[in-house]
Parts: sequence; structure tokens; C-alpha cells
Amino acid sequence: MFALVIDDGVLDWRERPDPVPGPGDVVVEVAAAGLNAADLLQRRGRYPAPPGVPADVPGLELAGRVVSVGDGVDATWVGRRVAALTGGGAQATHCAVPVEHLLAVPEGVELVEAAGFPEAFCTAHDALVTQGALTSGERLAVTGAAGGVGCAAVQIGRALDATVVALTRDGRHHEALRALGADETVVADGLAAIEPVDVVLELVGAATLPAVLPRVRAHGRILVVGVGSGSRVELDLLAVMGSRLTLTGSTLRGRTRTEKAEVVGRVARDLGPRWRDGALRVPVAEVVDVREAARAYDAFARPGKFGKIVLAVAPR
Amino acid sequence: MFALVIDDGVLDWRERPDPVPGPGDVVVEVAAAGLNAADLLQRRGRYPAPPGVPADVPGLELAGRVVSVGDGVDATWVGRRVAALTGGGAQATHCAVPVEHLLAVPEGVELVEAAGFPEAFCTAHDALVTQGALTSGERLAVTGAAGGVGCAAVQIGRALDATVVALTRDGRHHEALRALGADETVVADGLAAIEPVDVVLELVGAATLPAVLPRVRAHGRILVVGVGSGSRVELDLLAVMGSRLTLTGSTLRGRTRTEKAEVVGRVARDLGPRWRDGALRVPVAEVVDVREAARAYDAFARPGKFGKIVLAVAPR
Repeated sequence: MFALVIDDGVLDWRERPDPVPGPGDVVVEVAAAGLNAADLLQRRGRYPAPPGVPADVPGLELAGRVVSVGDGVDATWVGRRVAALTGGGAQATHCAVPVEHLLAVPEGVELVEAAGFPEAFCTAHDALVTQGALTSGERLAVTGAAGGVGCAAVQIGRALDATVVALTRDGRHHEALRALGADETVVADGLAAIEPVDVVLELVGAATLPAVLPRVRAHGRILVVGVGSGSRVELDLLAVMGSRLTLTGSTLRGRTRTEKAEVVGRVARDLGPRWRDGALRVPVAEVVDVREAARAYDAFARPGKFGKIVLAVAPR
Repeated sequence: MFALVIDDGVLDWRERPDPVPGPGDVVVEVAAAGLNAADLLQRRGRYPAPPGVPADVPGLELAGRVVSVGDGVDATWVGRRVAALTGGGAQATHCAVPVEHLLAVPEGVELVEAAGFPEAFCTAHDALVTQGALTSGERLAVTGAAGGVGCAAVQIGRALDATVVALTRDGRHHEALRALGADETVVADGLAAIEPVDVVLELVGAATLPAVLPRVRAHGRILVVGVGSGSRVELDLLAVMGSRLTLTGSTLRGRTRTEKAEVVGRVARDLGPRWRDGALRVPVAEVVDVREAARAYDAFARPGKFGKIVLAVAPR
């Protein structure tokens, strides 16, 4: 197979040994792989791969077709169109994945769009539903709403009948966010003026958390899953105490195989039907050939995109 | 009745109208009232009383005898020895309290000790059990362990079969903390060297939280209920994300009548039998006549005490 290898910070498309599916795994022939902030961190040596995944091949999600199965996996998986959450190694022509980390790609959804589904929707669902217990009628603020996780969160918030306040750096994606289900859209400068919210999905970090904190209602939950603007924030604990707030941080990547299977299983159960109905979308900002990955990584780092950047690995 | 009135920062023992019990309330003739950090904040104008309690009479807990009951309250309460969680107003000869905020004082426990039970044990139990879900076998760190809430938390941690690490400013109370059930005792300087913990009860604030944070294991819970050393801390959100930590702040005072009743009810259920058996104690650092309250408030502000400072209101 070929894989995108990080070699001292340089991205190189080179041959690697073909993966062999272990017990309970499948091998996917990758059509496309979504790009995530973690890939950029990994390229800079700041986000080491967990044990059991290749240390130098990035990629936390993919879509493609199953080409072989390991012991204990039903052979009828072969040939099926799947998307998968991976611990790394997705930016390659082939990737071994535990079968319980697969999502069936609905008919009519292109693999290039499906490749941007797993990480964004699993991250947003785990944070909002499993950790944040967001419920109907509550107000949700999503900072960095124009990114992949942000667009997923807006749609999940809408699906839960929450009122969704989408925050972006500037106003240019507000119409698109309203089309995804945002009830209110604000720019960073307007954050201090929003009506109080119950839940915050923090996808930006230091640039937004201090401003949004005073807008969180009593019993509010702040779910931190992205810190692209910086991770060091000053927190006033008296304010946190007075409003009885909970701040939870998390990542998906470091979780165990079983934990990831639980996340994927909840997404399949709660969001699968909506994905099949066409009610959930993955806005794709740009599709870049994996052989030009450096350009995609640079584009990811620039502000202003809407939705996911996806690497095309194989002809579709 | 007489009450301790805060008049422009000065504590004055003066006459006030007798309280009348509303529906569901009792009036307690106060024998003693525990002193808390909130009283000192209130004296400095930094912790306004919630609606429905006297704005200028401090005191969040008391012990005494019921002398009258309001509509709907069983008259057999009259004469019983009780401790109570109050929203304020406890530092007086009489105080009206919802009957569901009462705890029966066990035979053999003096009212001056019982007066230090409600706030400390309700705060620690609510944080550790209800919010923190501390379980058997987990490691608990208590910062500021020598204070009232700290001593309660050490005993609750022990009762839950957690391993309790008690942190104090210096070593002088370590023997006493081990007698209460602490498995390990450390001074602030030694915090960076403790074995990782699952749960932190943060009772000190800015002086300890940054040092204890890196010692919290994956899935750890940090429960912030005291910030005497300062409330502004710098937090590295990447560390919080990487270890999937949850930081929760809370206070008891601002809660609704129903919420407080739930807290008191859980304490009565979980801790009442142990209190009756003599397995839970309220270490009393000093008993001060309420007419000399200013001396008690000053003593509270000084470091080095062990356990509660209690105001004696009536002859026992």
C-alpha cells in the first residue's frame, strides 16, 4: 500500500507494507480521509499516536470499501461501503480497523463526504449527548461553528430540539450555518451579548472560552474538545462555583478500542437514521488529492473555511 | 430575639424581631452556630444573601432546639435537638428553618459540635458523592484538609473505602488527619510528588489547583468548593482534554429549598447512621461566645486551625 508518512514534519506519499487484519478487524481500501486538527498537531510532533497505530501515518477517519476481514468477522462485510473512526493511519490506501468502529455509509452519500463524518459527528455527539446531556429546549453555544465538528454539533443540537447559537470568527458563513439548523449566529465580538446558554461546545479555546463563560447559565456544562487558538486560559473559580458549572475536556483519540466502539455505536443508533434520511450533511470545504497533502494541511490551518477538508486517496 | 448583624462590615449583637415560622418551617432556639468562609465574605460585602434570608445576619448552619412549628409541621418536633443547614441568619438566638433542612442530633453529641456538622458534611458529601461519584478503591486528594469541610471529606472518603490523601499547608495536623481516616498526608510543597488521584476536593483554590491538576488521573474529577487562597487560576485546556478531566464548581448557599432538602436528605440517609455510631466527628478548633464574634471571625481568617470555629449563642 501507499501511505502519507510524516518524516521530520514533511508529508511524503510512500510505499508501506500492506496491513493485515487482526482478529475482529477489517481492512478498508480507502477512498477518502478527512483532515483534522490532530493531524496538524501530529505533523508538528505535538500529538503522538496512541499504541497500536502507526506512529507516522496521520488520519483519524476514512471512508472506502472493505477488502478483507480478520478472524471472527463476517465475510459479508467485504465490498461494503463504510466510514470509520481510526486511531491514526487513515491517510493511506489501506487501513486496518476494528469492525465495531465502522459506520455503514448510506446509499446516495458519496465516500468523499462520508470520509468527513466519523470524527466530526462522533466528537460532537460524545461531547453534547454523552458528556453534556444536552436536552430539548436547552440553549447550546458552539464556538468555531464553521469547522467540521462545529457543523456536526449545529445539526445534532437541532436534532435534539435545542436552540443552537453558532459562533464564528466573522459573519461570512452565517447563512450556511442557519441552513444547517443554527437558530442564532454571532461573531466573536458579539459573544458577550448573547442570551445565556446551558451548554457550550468549545472548539476554539483561549480566544473564546473566557468570553463565553460569563454567558453560561446555572448548572451549565462547558465541553472543551478543541483549542486551536491556544489552550491556556485564566478561569475565575468563584464564577464557576457561583453558577455551579462543569467544565469537561476530552479527546476521542486516546480512548480504548471498547470506548471508541461505544461512541461509534451510539452515533450509529442516534444519528444513523438521520444520516440515511439525508437530514445530516458533511459540508466539504475542499477535496485535495492526497499526493498534494501539504496543500491541504496548509489550507486547514488558514481561517475562513466552511466544513471539512478531505483528502482524496483513490479514484471514486 | 438577638442576632449578629453586619453593619457596614462591623459585627453587632443587637435585638431583632422574633422570627415567625412560615408553612413547613420550624423556629430553632439556637445553641451554637458554625462559622464558615462565606460568613467572612458576606461581612466584606462579597457574598450577598440569597432571597428569603436576612441580608445582614450571617450564619449557614446551627444547632439547637425546636421551639415552634409552622403550618403543616408535626408538633412533635418541638423540643427536639436539631442541626440545620440555613441560607443565612443562623448567628442569632432564633432562626426559622424549613423542616426538611433539619438533621436530628444524635444522643451524646453536644450541640456545640453538632453546629459544625451541617455545612461541612453537606458540602463534602454533595461534592464527593453526588457530583464526584467517588467510589471504593479510588484515590481522593483533599486540599485544605484541616478545615471544617476538609475534615468532613476525609471521613467521608474513608467511609467510602477510598484512599484519602490529605493536603495541608504544613505538617502540624497530620497526626489528627490520620486519626480521622487519612491514608496519606502531604504538605503543599509535596503535592507535585503524590501518586495520581482520581478525585480532588479543592478547598483552597489558586494556591493548590495548578499543582494538583497534573496529578489527576484520566477521567478524574476536580470538585471546587473553596477558593480562600484566590480564585483566578490558569488552566491548560490541553491537559484537561488529554486526561478527560471534569472540573465542577459549586456552592450550597444559592440552591433552592428543594435542592437543599435533597442534599440534607442524602446526608441523613448516608451519614446519619455513622454520626449516631460516633464514627463521624466534627473537630472543633475553638468555641467563641457570639458576643465576641469579631474575635472568632479574625481567628477563622488565620491559618493553622484544625476543624471548625463555632459561635456559642445560648447557654447549653
